[in-house]
Amino acid sequence: MPNPGQLVMLISPKGKRYLRTLEDGPDIHTGDGVLRIADLLAAAYGDTVQTHIGQPYRVLKPTLYDCVKLGIKRQTQILYPKEIGYLLVKLGIGPGTRVIEAGSGSGSFTAALSFAVGQTGRVYTYERRPEFSQLNARNLRRIGLGANVEHHVHDIAGGFLQTGVDALFLDVREPWAYAAHIPAAVMPGAPVAFLLPTVNQVSELLVALEAGPFDEVEVAEVLVRRWKPVPDRIRPEDRMIAHTGFLTFARCMERLEGAASLGTRERKQDAARRRREAERAAQADPDGADLPDEDGGEDE
Amino acid sequence: MPNPGQLVMLISPKGKRYLRTLEDGPDIHTGDGVLRIADLLAAAYGDTVQTHIGQPYRVLKPTLYDCVKLGIKRQTQILYPKEIGYLLVKLGIGPGTRVIEAGSGSGSFTAALSFAVGQTGRVYTYERRPEFSQLNARNLRRIGLGANVEHHVHDIAGGFLQTGVDALFLDVREPWAYAAHIPAAVMPGAPVAFLLPTVNQVSELLVALEAGPFDEVEVAEVLVRRWKPVPDRIRPEDRMIAHTGFLTFARCMERLEGAASLGTRERKQDAARRRREAERAAQADPDGADLPDEDGGEDE
Amino acid sequence: MPNPGQLVMLISPKGKRYLRTLEDGPDIHTGDGVLRIADLLAAAYGDTVQTHIGQPYRVLKPTLYDCVKLGIKRQTQILYPKEIGYLLVKLGIGPGTRVIEAGSGSGSFTAALSFAVGQTGRVYTYERRPEFSQLNARNLRRIGLGANVEHHVHDIAGGFLQTGVDALFLDVREPWAYAAHIPAAVMPGAPVAFLLPTVNQVSELLVALEAGPFDEVEVAEVLVRRWKPVPDRIRPEDRMIAHTGFLTFARCMERLEGAASLGTRERKQDAARRRREAERAAQADPDGADLPDEDGGEDE
Amino acid sequence: MPNPGQLVMLISPKGKRYLRTLEDGPDIHTGDGVLRIADLLAAAYGDTVQTHIGQPYRVLKPTLYDCVKLGIKRQTQILYPKEIGYLLVKLGIGPGTRVIEAGSGSGSFTAALSFAVGQTGRVYTYERRPEFSQLNARNLRRIGLGANVEHHVHDIAGGFLQTGVDALFLDVREPWAYAAHIPAAVMPGAPVAFLLPTVNQVSELLVALEAGPFDEVEVAEVLVRRWKPVPDRIRPEDRMIAHTGFLTFARCMERLEGAASLGTRERKQDAARRRREAERAAQADPDGADLPDEDGGEDE
Repeated sequence: MPNPGQLVMLISPKGKRYLRTLEDGPDIHTGDGVLRIADLLAAAYGDTVQTHIGQPYRVLKPTLYDCVKLGIKRQTQILYPKEIGYLLVKLGIGPGTRVIEAGSGSGSFTAALSFAVGQTGRVYTYERRPEFSQLNARNLRRIGLGANVEHHVHDIAGGFLQTGVDALFLDVREPWAYAAHIPAAVMPGAPVAFLLPTVNQVSELLVALEAGPFDEVEVAEVLVRRWKPVPDRIRPEDRMIAHTGFLTFARCMERLEGAASLGTRERKQDAARRRREAERAAQADPDGADLPDEDGGEDE
Repeated sequence: MPNPGQLVMLISPKGKRYLRTLEDGPDIHTGDGVLRIADLLAAAYGDTVQTHIGQPYRVLKPTLYDCVKLGIKRQTQILYPKEIGYLLVKLGIGPGTRVIEAGSGSGSFTAALSFAVGQTGRVYTYERRPEFSQLNARNLRRIGLGANVEHHVHDIAGGFLQTGVDALFLDVREPWAYAAHIPAAVMPGAPVAFLLPTVNQVSELLVALEAGPFDEVEVAEVLVRRWKPVPDRIRPEDRMIAHTGFLTFARCMERLEGAASLGTRERKQDAARRRREAERAAQADPDGADLPDEDGGEDE
Repeated sequence: MPNPGQLVMLISPKGKRYLRTLEDGPDIHTGDGVLRIADLLAAAYGDTVQTHIGQPYRVLKPTLYDCVKLGIKRQTQILYPKEIGYLLVKLGIGPGTRVIEAGSGSGSFTAALSFAVGQTGRVYTYERRPEFSQLNARNLRRIGLGANVEHHVHDIAGGFLQTGVDALFLDVREPWAYAAHIPAAVMPGAPVAFLLPTVNQVSELLVALEAGPFDEVEVAEVLVRRWKPVPDRIRPEDRMIAHTGFLTFARCMERLEGAASLGTRERKQDAARRRREAERAAQADPDGADLPDEDGGEDE
Repeated sequence: MPNPGQLVMLISPKGKRYLRTLEDGPDIHTGDGVLRIADLLAAAYGDTVQTHIGQPYRVLKPTLYDCVKLGIKRQTQILYPKEIGYLLVKLGIGPGTRVIEAGSGSGSFTAALSFAVGQTGRVYTYERRPEFSQLNARNLRRIGLGANVEHHVHDIAGGFLQTGVDALFLDVREPWAYAAHIPAAVMPGAPVAFLLPTVNQVSELLVALEAGPFDEVEVAEVLVRRWKPVPDRIRPEDRMIAHTGFLTFARCMERLEGAASLGTRERKQDAARRRREAERAAQADPDGADLPDEDGGEDE
């Protein structure tokens, strides 16, 4: 049974979903009649509570997905669960992870990070605009998260305040301007990721990453195609979200092979050369004996 | 610095990736020359180690993504990171979660679950075929996971051995045959998910879910479109994975409103009616005062 | 210069598009002011005509795309240009082609066929419901097409009235019910196509096609992803059409090898066997000397 | 029955497809045995001819799709049927159309144009490299097309040799360099299209088009997702073509409203303003009385 103060998801008879923190107070007026707060406090997860005119509302424990979809008041573009899930896996976020995020935004990804790293992890989130930092903190509290989150109202043009974190994510307009501060903040070889809405920005970011010390650069989009769950007329939804943003991934290498003495131009040439070699290698792969080819090739 | 016994990812000069557990032993013969084990043990994450002919191998800490891609020996179809991430978010998997999975398969999703639930969570994985259960366990050990996993070599036709778990995932050929055992195993309202390769199977599953006590049924595909990370010639990859499987999600309700007295046919009619109403509601939304519309509409 | 009676496309200052047949009559009242009909009659293609308050409307010659998008009054689901283009190419529709279509529907595909086959071709369109047949004919006249179209208000359950046509397209709810009438209507080996909204229908159609005499069966979806044409912020549109229908293609063979003596069950087994062989062949291809592999593999 | 000299498509028992012009000559050796040329000459479309060891080859009339897929020897990147179909519809190509294409390339789109415009139309194809112009002409002859095609071995940097054509298509590396020559070649308001592999090129093209006199600019990708046609295990193919190129469409306006006195910068600002207004209009649409909203909104 949910405790007072605990978060529940209410689902109306028409399938609309709402997040509520259960606490004593006035009854809830809905378009389907009044929900008595006493009934809600007495309900267990999975129960159905009726309004005063007999309309059934279901009471569920919200998942991370529900919290992100329903609990984040949007005043900025938010990350969608489809990007969030892929980012968590690519960045290796789990219990105990220390991770930097900038900017904080409305908090959909901050919420996911706070949830995933647990009590033993730590989320450092940077936001230049105080009002968004506060919105972010409020949104996290609203869904029972945030105890492991440090909010920094801080312009990252001056760098990050942490060192040796496990992963880093930038959701800012000009991430290339801050790339030079990343090596000082993360552990060597740490995975980093970027979200950008336009291809022009991705292109500019790639130039900055090629200047080093970044490697293993990848760009991808995540798409979800939903289907109508009608068994005898099964078909995709008529419309879908076609674009939220481009994800760019890289590893931040402390130093590349011989990198100390290389300037930007040389690094670029080196990166280009490595790319060409990788392409050739993809055709004819002369691998050694002790390291069997473990890579399944397609990286989805 | 990685400790002996710790997992590292090695990246060859041509970009091939390998997982290795660092331990004393013979040197490693590669297609690019010999890597001395002493050099690897002395290296820190992010370092580059050279083979005897001067070819650089980078040493990185693998993320969950890398472990799933490189560490899971495939003898069955595996889940891809794109599905894994979306499943974790939709099922609400995080530190402390108790979750059931069947079948165990090669272990790509078991690994993700073991990683995400941490020391305070628990993964119960069922597999009828002993050889796959053992492969799964070996694959987990190989990537340093599995301490929080219970392997059951057990036919789930007889039901599950746990009760009240937080979430459940079925990756079996005929999940509808086991749907009736789910309510006894999960907490009321728990999120459940299914992976199926064909639409015919999804259709058959939807019929079973409509027979209850399941609700909030959704079907979706996750697609990743990768781009060539070349700043001045930026474009999508020529080919992509177009299909791994259909994900079906639901909530397992202990009892639906008045469900005790409803037979299968009535439930279906009820479900159909609710769907129609939801569609009407999506057009003209007469929402109540105290429950502002929190749902962002598009559920990606 | 367009002649009186000719079709033009008008584009408002805000980018809204309208089809009009130019003819003497009252001036046109728009949300941007009054367009004088005398000005329109005096304008050449590419000209801009101003409303009485100085708002510019451009005058263009509409393409097939524009006619289908703007000139077809929809009372049924219509085919989109993305499906129309692919169908024309797959069915080999061009000047002189004789083609059957059923049902006529609102006429978006009838218009495309009428346009593509020209004066030397012939379109036979079947529609059971007289009101749709009339709507179809009106829509064609409206966009200056239809002189080469024969409208049959006729239930195709009794078969088709033509023989030896070059291609055939069915856009009906239960195409499998009419498959047996196709061989009598088309030339041997003719390409045929079907549009169906649900996978269940595709599955049922495939069963009927396997019963013969059909071969070279393919199923495909066509998707168009539109981009925002902003050079310095280039990115995909936020949303896209995710589903209009599944296209199924086949060749109608007069008789399969030894087919005369084969029953439905044997045909299916034969088809399944051929499919398995084709799959094996795709792996290891032992092709002959005189017939070099011309097939580019990917059939998009 | 096909006449001697006519093109047929042969399909092997394993589903491999070949184009052949039927003419007296030596028998054909295949991986499945010898096909006697006399048998082929005696066969009708739809017939099956057996090799000397009894393997059945089917004889079909190839469609435009088959000709493009099988008959075009590729020494350059070719257009796929998915792009070809959409281009034909968007450019309004049909019987009688006069159309310019550059470069000629291997001829997949030249073939489609030659087929679609028929005896009353005309295709002007430009190619700087003589060897590709010749390859293109050979490929067209090979599939029985090209009588209505004029090959120009000519650098379009000097402009086009025609005036007032109905449509124009550029498949060259730097189309922006030739945009200024388009107005002199096409009828006012003519539809033009461009194929480009990278987003950088699209961006550069958009800048050139904004400089005028082009309007109605659109960018789109066409994707085909193929399904396995197995009725009881229906599912998408595992892989798909994810990228062939970006299509850009525009109308070439002889002169924009007041354009004579506008410089490039002003035009751009004007275009930007019009775009913003169109976006506003899409939200709240104050349409006039005489011009009902005919635009179906989604332009696929």
